[in-house]
Amino acid sequence: MKGTVLYGPRDVRFEEREAPRIIKPTDATIKIAAACVCGSDLWPYRGISPVTQPVPMGHEYCGIVEEVGSAVKSVKPGQFVIGSFFASDNTCPHCQAGYQSSCQHRELVAGAQAPLLRVPLADGTLVSTPEVPPDGMVPSLLTLSDVMGTGWFAADAASVKPGKAVVVVGDGAVGLLGVLSARQMGAGRIIAISRHETRQKLAREFGATDIVTERGDEGVARIMELTGGIGADSVLECVGTQEAMMQAIRSTRPGGYAGYVGVPHGVQLKGEELFFTHAHLHGGPAPVRRYLPDLIKLVWNGKINPGKVFDLTLPLDKVAEGYRAMDERRAIKALLRP
Amino acid sequence: MKGTVLYGPRDVRFEEREAPRIIKPTDATIKIAAACVCGSDLWPYRGISPVTQPVPMGHEYCGIVEEVGSAVKSVKPGQFVIGSFFASDNTCPHCQAGYQSSCQHRELVAGAQAPLLRVPLADGTLVSTPEVPPDGMVPSLLTLSDVMGTGWFAADAASVKPGKAVVVVGDGAVGLLGVLSARQMGAGRIIAISRHETRQKLAREFGATDIVTERGDEGVARIMELTGGIGADSVLECVGTQEAMMQAIRSTRPGGYAGYVGVPHGVQLKGEELFFTHAHLHGGPAPVRRYLPDLIKLVWNGKINPGKVFDLTLPLDKVAEGYRAMDERRAIKALLRP
Repeated sequence: MKGTVLYGPRDVRFEEREAPRIIKPTDATIKIAAACVCGSDLWPYRGISPVTQPVPMGHEYCGIVEEVGSAVKSVKPGQFVIGSFFASDNTCPHCQAGYQSSCQHRELVAGAQAPLLRVPLADGTLVSTPEVPPDGMVPSLLTLSDVMGTGWFAADAASVKPGKAVVVVGDGAVGLLGVLSARQMGAGRIIAISRHETRQKLAREFGATDIVTERGDEGVARIMELTGGIGADSVLECVGTQEAMMQAIRSTRPGGYAGYVGVPHGVQLKGEELFFTHAHLHGGPAPVRRYLPDLIKLVWNGKINPGKVFDLTLPLDKVAEGYRAMDERRAIKALLRP
Repeated sequence: MKGTVLYGPRDVRFEEREAPRIIKPTDATIKIAAACVCGSDLWPYRGISPVTQPVPMGHEYCGIVEEVGSAVKSVKPGQFVIGSFFASDNTCPHCQAGYQSSCQHRELVAGAQAPLLRVPLADGTLVSTPEVPPDGMVPSLLTLSDVMGTGWFAADAASVKPGKAVVVVGDGAVGLLGVLSARQMGAGRIIAISRHETRQKLAREFGATDIVTERGDEGVARIMELTGGIGADSVLECVGTQEAMMQAIRSTRPGGYAGYVGVPHGVQLKGEELFFTHAHLHGGPAPVRRYLPDLIKLVWNGKINPGKVFDLTLPLDKVAEGYRAMDERRAIKALLRP
């Protein structure tokens, strides 16, 4: 089998690898219907996170169950399934509290940019669709594996409520789907921070009511202007840099909520500043598994179409071009079809 | 009039000052029934916060209204009142959201360790008791001005709910009243972190079910042991140091709540660590005004007796001894009677 492996900065190869197989009785293997490149894949691709050995890439996936281990009860071969980037048992106290991405037995899923994938803890990780979906629905279902679930968690962590004023920092796929999530949750006003015309357009399509192009403290000043000097009720941080995090916190009204899902890189928060903002802060790796059943319903019933974030589709063996296009911001998100 | 003035590290003087008077039509003056020394007064007293000029001290107060400005409508001379350490208009958007200590027109109240005090924005700041209280109730009512309101906010920010496992970091007066607050809110288990026997005893009296003497990472390990490896649902941080803050965050279960009210001094939070804890974080200067009506009722009806934190009572002119006793941890909190 050929699969995607990252060797070092900007060195992505599609090469022969051992095919995944059932190792533990709780595993399943999945024939990938579609995979994609994640914004977080760009951290090691750009050399910001170190790569010490060749790494099989890809953690967003959906497809048909090929084989299951002897202990797997909730899914069976032939079913179409979606799972989270963190495998979870869905029974431990953290899972029961809805934080499956902090599962006491969690394992990172890796190697999804390939035709076949091994998923550990299949019973606690995979959720099946009512039936095998039409091909046109596959991209939207794929987003539920990470990027849409993460945007949804950002909005949930930021406590988005009907009628509230929401700011979304970050116009990558997660930020754009944060806009869509806030709209679904009934936000009254959704201010998207974006400088890129194609992303602004998609943000508006997903429900943004205002676009702000300024960043950092200028961006904060603009948000204050737009909210009558009060600040936003809910702010979604979908980048992970110091600037984005501070823009999010400083745009939040006292008593408001900042939800952060961008994996922080070098972010430092000053306790004293945070203290006087009176902001609520919550975030982390999205507990995608918690949201999968509801989000599958929303896609299945045509209520949301998050697959629109894919503006580049490539055959799987052209995966390196997907990384390049996203790195150069020529594409919002690259879909890979085996 | 004589009042308390801090000149520099460990230099507290009770000396002649100009008597407060009505300056703005929204002011009131109050004849102080009791005042006290706050843990936060010790920061400048110890030279940790700089003192650049002589500062009138004291921000916790209750007493009889002496005079009101022409615009004041809600309180009148002769009434017994309690107010927050931050004066607030109680009408701006931040006040309406329940964050009066972030009021758009907030002013720090200063100079309460004196027989007479000017309180700005009297209508939005002061709450009167049903009638003039018996003298024995005055200490408990005084705590509502800051220390009890702050302990209550810590528990509220940490989302304490019936039956939940709660940890309180800090055995100062705020931490001890955080224990009392968690008990009132129905916590199932309350683990107090304390090494001092007299404070442990009061913590137990206020409702602590367990005492942990370890601090820092050892303290975290002990909490994990006591909670079956899960962590606490709610953690109250009532100190303001790096060690206490990290102990609080690391003791919180994924999806749990850390409420922090210790004024942070040199605290830095690493974004990446915070991200993977999945903790909710909320805190800041307590919006005491929000809680005053309910807390007055609880004291008035004898449901709580937070005045027990005062283990040293001094005549006002011996205020310097109050600072010394608290600095040396000979007293939990010093009550000053004019």
